[in-house]
Amino acid sequence: MSISGFDSTIPILGQPAVLSPLARASADVPFGSDFTDDNQFVVYGVETDEGRVDLTIPASQLLEKAGPRRTLYFDPGKVHAGIVTCGGLCPGINNVIRALVMGLWYHYGVKQISGIRYGYRGFLPYDGLPLETLTPRVVTDIHRQGGTILGSSRGQGDRVSDIVDSMERMNLNILFVIGGDGTQRGSLDITQEIGRRGLKMAVVGIPKTIDNDLSFIQKSFGFETAVSKAVDSIVAAHVEAQNAFNGIGVVKVMGRESGFIAAHTALAVNDVNFVLIPEVRFDLHGPNGLLSHLEQRIVQRHHAVILVAEGAGQDHLEASTHRDASGNKKPGDIGTYLTDRIRDYFLKKQIEVSTRYIDPSYIIRSAPANANDSIYCARLGTHAVHAAMAGKTGLLISLIHDQFVHVPIQLAVSKRHQIAPEKELWRDVVAATGQPRLMKNAEDSVQHTLPDVPAEPVLLV
Amino acid sequence: MSISGFDSTIPILGQPAVLSPLARASADVPFGSDFTDDNQFVVYGVETDEGRVDLTIPASQLLEKAGPRRTLYFDPGKVHAGIVTCGGLCPGINNVIRALVMGLWYHYGVKQISGIRYGYRGFLPYDGLPLETLTPRVVTDIHRQGGTILGSSRGQGDRVSDIVDSMERMNLNILFVIGGDGTQRGSLDITQEIGRRGLKMAVVGIPKTIDNDLSFIQKSFGFETAVSKAVDSIVAAHVEAQNAFNGIGVVKVMGRESGFIAAHTALAVNDVNFVLIPEVRFDLHGPNGLLSHLEQRIVQRHHAVILVAEGAGQDHLEASTHRDASGNKKPGDIGTYLTDRIRDYFLKKQIEVSTRYIDPSYIIRSAPANANDSIYCARLGTHAVHAAMAGKTGLLISLIHDQFVHVPIQLAVSKRHQIAPEKELWRDVVAATGQPRLMKNAEDSVQHTLPDVPAEPVLLV
Amino acid sequence: MSISGFDSTIPILGQPAVLSPLARASADVPFGSDFTDDNQFVVYGVETDEGRVDLTIPASQLLEKAGPRRTLYFDPGKVHAGIVTCGGLCPGINNVIRALVMGLWYHYGVKQISGIRYGYRGFLPYDGLPLETLTPRVVTDIHRQGGTILGSSRGQGDRVSDIVDSMERMNLNILFVIGGDGTQRGSLDITQEIGRRGLKMAVVGIPKTIDNDLSFIQKSFGFETAVSKAVDSIVAAHVEAQNAFNGIGVVKVMGRESGFIAAHTALAVNDVNFVLIPEVRFDLHGPNGLLSHLEQRIVQRHHAVILVAEGAGQDHLEASTHRDASGNKKPGDIGTYLTDRIRDYFLKKQIEVSTRYIDPSYIIRSAPANANDSIYCARLGTHAVHAAMAGKTGLLISLIHDQFVHVPIQLAVSKRHQIAPEKELWRDVVAATGQPRLMKNAEDSVQHTLPDVPAEPVLLV
Amino acid sequence: MSISGFDSTIPILGQPAVLSPLARASADVPFGSDFTDDNQFVVYGVETDEGRVDLTIPASQLLEKAGPRRTLYFDPGKVHAGIVTCGGLCPGINNVIRALVMGLWYHYGVKQISGIRYGYRGFLPYDGLPLETLTPRVVTDIHRQGGTILGSSRGQGDRVSDIVDSMERMNLNILFVIGGDGTQRGSLDITQEIGRRGLKMAVVGIPKTIDNDLSFIQKSFGFETAVSKAVDSIVAAHVEAQNAFNGIGVVKVMGRESGFIAAHTALAVNDVNFVLIPEVRFDLHGPNGLLSHLEQRIVQRHHAVILVAEGAGQDHLEASTHRDASGNKKPGDIGTYLTDRIRDYFLKKQIEVSTRYIDPSYIIRSAPANANDSIYCARLGTHAVHAAMAGKTGLLISLIHDQFVHVPIQLAVSKRHQIAPEKELWRDVVAATGQPRLMKNAEDSVQHTLPDVPAEPVLLV
Repeated sequence: MSISGFDSTIPILGQPAVLSPLARASADVPFGSDFTDDNQFVVYGVETDEGRVDLTIPASQLLEKAGPRRTLYFDPGKVHAGIVTCGGLCPGINNVIRALVMGLWYHYGVKQISGIRYGYRGFLPYDGLPLETLTPRVVTDIHRQGGTILGSSRGQGDRVSDIVDSMERMNLNILFVIGGDGTQRGSLDITQEIGRRGLKMAVVGIPKTIDNDLSFIQKSFGFETAVSKAVDSIVAAHVEAQNAFNGIGVVKVMGRESGFIAAHTALAVNDVNFVLIPEVRFDLHGPNGLLSHLEQRIVQRHHAVILVAEGAGQDHLEASTHRDASGNKKPGDIGTYLTDRIRDYFLKKQIEVSTRYIDPSYIIRSAPANANDSIYCARLGTHAVHAAMAGKTGLLISLIHDQFVHVPIQLAVSKRHQIAPEKELWRDVVAATGQPRLMKNAEDSVQHTLPDVPAEPVLLV
Repeated sequence: MSISGFDSTIPILGQPAVLSPLARASADVPFGSDFTDDNQFVVYGVETDEGRVDLTIPASQLLEKAGPRRTLYFDPGKVHAGIVTCGGLCPGINNVIRALVMGLWYHYGVKQISGIRYGYRGFLPYDGLPLETLTPRVVTDIHRQGGTILGSSRGQGDRVSDIVDSMERMNLNILFVIGGDGTQRGSLDITQEIGRRGLKMAVVGIPKTIDNDLSFIQKSFGFETAVSKAVDSIVAAHVEAQNAFNGIGVVKVMGRESGFIAAHTALAVNDVNFVLIPEVRFDLHGPNGLLSHLEQRIVQRHHAVILVAEGAGQDHLEASTHRDASGNKKPGDIGTYLTDRIRDYFLKKQIEVSTRYIDPSYIIRSAPANANDSIYCARLGTHAVHAAMAGKTGLLISLIHDQFVHVPIQLAVSKRHQIAPEKELWRDVVAATGQPRLMKNAEDSVQHTLPDVPAEPVLLV
Repeated sequence: MSISGFDSTIPILGQPAVLSPLARASADVPFGSDFTDDNQFVVYGVETDEGRVDLTIPASQLLEKAGPRRTLYFDPGKVHAGIVTCGGLCPGINNVIRALVMGLWYHYGVKQISGIRYGYRGFLPYDGLPLETLTPRVVTDIHRQGGTILGSSRGQGDRVSDIVDSMERMNLNILFVIGGDGTQRGSLDITQEIGRRGLKMAVVGIPKTIDNDLSFIQKSFGFETAVSKAVDSIVAAHVEAQNAFNGIGVVKVMGRESGFIAAHTALAVNDVNFVLIPEVRFDLHGPNGLLSHLEQRIVQRHHAVILVAEGAGQDHLEASTHRDASGNKKPGDIGTYLTDRIRDYFLKKQIEVSTRYIDPSYIIRSAPANANDSIYCARLGTHAVHAAMAGKTGLLISLIHDQFVHVPIQLAVSKRHQIAPEKELWRDVVAATGQPRLMKNAEDSVQHTLPDVPAEPVLLV
Repeated sequence: MSISGFDSTIPILGQPAVLSPLARASADVPFGSDFTDDNQFVVYGVETDEGRVDLTIPASQLLEKAGPRRTLYFDPGKVHAGIVTCGGLCPGINNVIRALVMGLWYHYGVKQISGIRYGYRGFLPYDGLPLETLTPRVVTDIHRQGGTILGSSRGQGDRVSDIVDSMERMNLNILFVIGGDGTQRGSLDITQEIGRRGLKMAVVGIPKTIDNDLSFIQKSFGFETAVSKAVDSIVAAHVEAQNAFNGIGVVKVMGRESGFIAAHTALAVNDVNFVLIPEVRFDLHGPNGLLSHLEQRIVQRHHAVILVAEGAGQDHLEASTHRDASGNKKPGDIGTYLTDRIRDYFLKKQIEVSTRYIDPSYIIRSAPANANDSIYCARLGTHAVHAAMAGKTGLLISLIHDQFVHVPIQLAVSKRHQIAPEKELWRDVVAATGQPRLMKNAEDSVQHTLPDVPAEPVLLV
C-alpha cells in the first residue's frame, strides 16, 4: 500500500526554550497535561477501498497536532504581533481577530498587538495607513458584527520585499494572516523572504475562504453561516416563483471554482430544482440542455428555482462574449446571463414566464458568524497563537477529522478543493433536486467536467 | 502498535440479489460509479502520539462506509417500512423522517411506509394507537417545524416480544428507529429477537441525542442547533446580570452525563464565567469552591453568568436530599438548587445580589433544525434507507471524519461519549471562561472527576 | 372650523335581517355586547393648530367602525365567497387569506370558499385556471410562509365585464380583494358593474401596499416586516462599506411614489448616511448635489451608506435616457444608475472607492409576516368577513387611530399617501442620517419637491 | 356632548427665550417650518357611538403636540442632563438612552450628560455609585444589546428629598426618567419637590412598561418585541404538547395587572387554546371551569397550550396560600400553581398527560428591540429632548393616534390601561383561541371580572 506522498513537516524558527506561562498556571492541576507535544499527529487520509484488512499509513500522511506547547520560542514580554486580514469578507473574521488578541493577551501576556489596515496594502508606505492598536477592550464585542474591523483588500501579496521591510521597521515577531488561497501564497512568499533575510519572524495563516475551496481543511470558517444565509434567498426565490404564473427564480451564490455553497444550500432546503456548479459542465440548449429540462419542469409544475454558483458555466459566458463584441463590462456574471437566456428562450417558445433574479452575495458574506462558526473561529485563533508562540512558521491552522492541526502553507495551497462529481456529495445533491445527473448533449458527454478538475484530492491506499 | 480491538462487522439479512433502481437510473452517466461497495471502509482512530512514523491500522478499526449498494436485499415493490421516534425532542427529527420517506419513495419506489405513534408504545396493543401513513405529500413541509410528527415517548423498549409480534402482524420488513442510547439498546434487543425468530426484518437506527453523548459518532444531529439556541439564553442571562446590582444569571441546559452543550455554548458566546458539567466535580463551599470564586467575581465585576448542565453536581443534590427527608419531588434539579445555594450564601455574607434563573430546555429541544443540521439529517436519513434496502441490520448510521458509516448498535451503545477533562475541549472552555481549572478543595482533589468517567474513548496506538 | 369634506358613507346591498350566529353563541355572556353597531364611528382628522379650544368635527369626517354586526345581510349557509390576491408580493397576504377562511368558516359557518388563482386573470376564461377550494385544513399553516398561496399577477382589473360574468357563473356572493391602489380601483369598477347589473354581491377590499402609500390607513400590513428585512440589508451594506477602502454601499428598497420604507429603515438602524425618496428631489452634481456631499463624507469618514427608494430621482433617469439613445432596457433602475454615477464621479476625481450595490426587494417582499403584522393581518381578515356578511360593499377595511374602520374604496384611492417633506417624519430622518435637508443647487431650490406631491392629505381645522 | 374632563396642561419652568440651534441650521430651507408650536394639539378620544353627526371635542381633551420648539428655555451650553432607568428590563431602553444622548449632543450641543446607575438608588449617597459619563462614542452601539447600560433597580422613588438634594449637588438641569407606573409617580414627586424648592429643573419621563399597562399611550415601547419573543415560547410549547401523549404546554408571560402581552401573543400565533389574563376571572373547577374545558380538549385533540399572564388568577393563589399554611415563598406564581393543579386533576381523573411549563420572562425582557420598536424608541428619546430643552416639565412623552404628544405625568399615572373584556381585542382573542368567553360557574358569573377593573379608560361622548 502506498500513496503519492506529501511533506507535512512544519518549519520552526529555532529551538523553543521559554517555559510557557500556561505551564505555570496549571502546575497544580491533578489531571493529565494541558499540553500538546510534537509527537502527536493526526492521520490525513482515512478511506480505503481494499476491504477490511490492516492498513499502513505512511509517516508522510501524518499532520502535526495543534495545541499549546510547554516550551515557547518567543518570550511573551518581548513579542510584537501583527494581524492582517485580506480578500473578500466572510462570516467570522472578527471572531478570529478577537481570539488572537485574547489568546495573546490573557494566555501568554503579549501586550503589543497591531492590526494592519486593509490587507497587505496596510504594510505599504504608499497609503500611509496607520496601524490599529489591538487590546481586549478594543476587540471584546467585535464578533457581534460581520466583516473585519481591520478592513480588507485584495492583492499586493506579491510586494513581498516591501512587506518584509515594513515588518522589520515595525519589529514584528509574529504575523497572523487571515486570508484565502492567494493571500496564503503571499504569506508563503513572505515566510520565504523572512528566511532569506535570516529574520526570526513567525508567519501563521488562518485559512479563510467562504467558497470552502481549500484543501487540507475539513471546512473553512464562515462556510456554514454562508450556507444558512443562502438558504434565506432560496426560500425567497421559491416563494416568488410559486406566486407568479410560471415563475422562475434564479439565485447566484459564491463559488468561483468550487460549488460547495450551492451544493450544501440545495441540501439544506428542499426548494431547489437545478444546481449549477463550476465542477460540472452543462449545456444550455439541445434536448439534454438546461433550458429543455427547465421547460419540462415549468410545463408540469409551473415554477422552478435555479441555484447557480458564480463560477458555473463560464464556458457559456466566454462564447457569448466572443459573439457580442461590444464592451460587456462583466463577462463573468452567470446569474444575469442565465436569467437573460431563460427569458429569451421562453419568449421564443411563446411560453409566458416570470423570472426573478436574486444575488445575495453581500448579504451572505457580511453576516456575523453563527454559533458553530463562532466556536470554530475562536478555536482557530487560539491554536494560531499557540503555534506562533512555539516558533512555528509557514503554516496554516486547520481542522482535519475534528482535530486541530498544523499544515504547511505550501501543501495547503498546492491544490484546490472541489466537488467530485462522481462522489457522494454531488450524488446526494442530484437526488435532492431531482435534476438530471448530467445536462450535456450526446456529442459533448465525454468532456462532461471541466478538464482541469481533479478528483477528490488524496485517497489513501 | 496495537489497539483494544472492537468488532465493527455489520450483520446482514442475506445475500443482496436485487438490482437497485438507482443502478438503472444512472446507467448512462459517463462518470464513475454512484455506488458504494462493501470493500470501502473508514479508519476510526486517527490520532497517534508516537511521532512521525508509519502507522498500522488494524482491520478491526475500520468502519464500513455507508451509501447506496448496487444490489439490494429487498425488492422495493414488496417492502413495508416503519419509522418510530423515541425519547426526548431534539431539533431535526422531522428532517430525518422526511428524508427516510423521500428516499424510500423516490429513490427506491417503496410506497408502503408507516409511522409508529409515540415511540415504542405505538407498537403495543394497550393504547390502540393507529399507524400514520407516510407519503411525500405528508412529509414535504414537516422539517419547518420542530419535534416529531409521530410523537414520542420514553421507555417500553424492553417489551421486545410484544414489539416484534406487532411488527409481524404489520408485515414490516424494515424498521427505522430514531432515538438515543436507551432506545437503541431496545432496537438491538429487537434485532436479536428478530434473529431468534428467523425473520427477515432489517432494523436500522439513526442516533438521536441532543446531549451529543453517543460514542462512534462525530456529532449527533440537532446538537449544533441546540447550542445556537442555548446561546440566546446566555445572552439573556448576561443582560439580566449586568443590569441588576450584583446580578447573577444561572442557566441550565441539557446534559445528563455529558456536558457538551454547556461546553460548546460557553465557547460560542463570551459571556459565561463558570461552566459546570457532569464530568468535572466541583465543591460549592470552601476556599476553592464555586461560591468563593463567585464571590470574588461579584465583588470585582458586579455580575456573573453560570452555565450548568443538568447532570452536573448530582453529588450535591443527593447529599441535600438525604438531609431534607421530605418528599422532594425533583431531587435532581441542579439549576434551582444552585440558585438557592447562591442566594443563601450571599444573604449570609450580607452581600446584596440579584439572581435570575433561566431554564430554556423546552425552547431548545423543540426548535427546528438549522441549515447545517438540516443537511446532516437529510443525509443521515438517506443513508439509513440505503443500508436497510441492502439488507443490513442491527446498525446505526453514523458520521466519522465527515464520512457516513455503518456502526453496529452493540458497539455504539457500549460506552458513553463524555468530555475528557484533560483534553483540548475542556482546556479551551476553561480558558474562555476564565474559571479555575478545578473548583475542589485540597482534600478532595484526588477524586476530581466522577469515578466512572473514562477518558476519551478509543485512542489509536 | 371647517374641512374639505369627504364622503365616508359605506354602500350596503340591502337591509340586514339574518341574526348572526355570533349572537346566538354569546347569548349567555353576562357582560356587554359583542357587537359593533352602525352608530359607532371614529374621527379621522385628529390634529389642530388652533390652540387649546373646543373643536368641532364635522360628521363627514367620521369613519364607520368595523366589527361584527348583530344582523347579517347574507344567510351564511347560502354564501359562496371568493378570495383574490393581486399585485406584488407583500408579507402577510397568507395571514389575511387564513383569517378570511377561518372567520367565514368558524364564526359564520360559511363552507363554500374559493380562491381565485393569479389575481384577476384567474377570473378570465383565457387561461382556464382552476379555482382553489379553501378550507381550514388547507389554510391552517399557510401563514408560516411568505407570498400568497393563490398566486398573484398584475393587471386585468379593467376587464370588469368579464370578471363580473365570471362571478355570476360562479354564483359568488362575496368577493374579498387583497391588493393595492390599482387593484382596488379595479374592485371599485367591479362593485359599480355589480350595481349596474343589480346583483347582490359584496366586494370588500383589504388594502395591500408594501410601500405604505395608501391614504386613509394608518399603516399597511407587511410594512413593518418589510422595514425589518430592509434593515438587514443596511447592516450588510454598512459592514461592506466599512471594510473596504473608501467603501460606498448603495441599497435600493421598494417605494415607487412614497419613500416610507426607506425613511423608516433609516430610523430603525443608525448606519444610513443618505436617504433618497421620491417626495424630495435631489441634484447629483453641483456644490449642493449628492455627489459633492458624498465626497465630503468619504474624505472624512472613508465609508458611506446610501439608501434609495426605487421611485427616487426618476428625473435623472429620464434625462440620462434621453442623452443615451440606445435601447436601455431598464430606464427606471435608480439603484444601478446611482452606483454607476458614483463610480464615474470618483474615477474622474481620482479618488479610489469601492461600491457595493444591494437590491433586497425580492427577499423583503417574500418574507413571512412578523408577529405584529401577523396580528394585524388576522384582524383585518376577520373584520373583512364581518363587513361582507353584513352586506356592506365597495369598502376597504382600514385601521385609523388603532381602530378598525370601513373606508369607501373611492375615498381610499382618491389620493396617495406620501411623506410630507416639511413634517416630523422627514425631519427626524434628516436628523438621524445627518444628511443635508435638501440637496439641490440654488437655481433649482424653488422646485424642491416633485410638483405633484401634495402635502399630508387631510388636515383638520 | 360632554366628557369626564381631564387637565392636559403641561407645566413649564419659564418663558422660552433662547433661539434653538435647530432654527439656525434650517434657516435656508425653502419649505415649511421644522418646528412644532404650542398651538398644535391632538385629539385624545376618537370614538363616538352617537352616529354620523357633528362632534364637539372639548378643549380639555386635547393633548399638546411634541416636537422641537423654535425657542428654548435652556441655553444648551450650560445644560447638565441626567438619565435614569428604573424598574424591570424591557426591550429598547438602550435605544432611548442612545436617542437622548444623540439628540442632546448633535441637535442642541449639550455636552454634559450623566447616566445615573441602577435607578433612583444611583442618586442616593448610601451606595456611592459613580455617575456614568455619556457621549455619542459611549452610546453609539448600545442599541444592539438588550437591557440598559445604566443598570436598573426597583424602588427608592419615595426618597424624593435625597434625590433632589443629589440633583442639586450635581447641578442637573434636566432629568430624563425611563420607567413605568411606579417610577413615574416618583418622578412626579420629584417634579413637585423641585417646584417647592423653586429650582429650574425639567423632569421628562419616557414611559416604560413591557405590560403595556399605561394609559394615555397608544403602545409602550418594547411591547411589540416582547410579543414577538413570547411567540417563540408558544411555538415551543405547541411542539412539546403535540409531541407528547396528551401533552399540555403552559406558558407564563408578563402582565401583572393587564393581559396585553398574552392577548397579542395569542393573536399572533394560532396555537394557543386558553388565554388567562388578570382582567377576566376564571374558575378552575366545576362544569364551566378551566380544568373541565381543558379535559374536553385533551380527550378530543390530545394536546393543548395554555398562555397565562403572571397576574391572572391571583384569587386562586391567595385561596391556596390560605389553605396551605406553610411558608410558601412565591405565592404569586400562577404558572407553576396552574401546572400543579392540572397534574393533580388529570392524575385524579386517571388520564395520562404530560405537562410542560415554560417561563420565558427573562428571555423576553432582555431582548434587543426589533426594527419597529427601534424606530419608536429613537423618536421617543428625540421628542423628550425637545420637550426638556423647551423648559417643559412633569410630563411624559407619549404616542397617541401615531402623533407624539406631551402628557402630564399626573394624568398618565391616574389610571391603569387594561383589556376591556367586552370590547374588540378580547373578543378577537376568544375567537382566535376558541376558548369559552367566560370560564365561571353559574353562581359566580355576576362577578366575572375583578371588581376594580374599569372599562376602557376614556370614552368620547
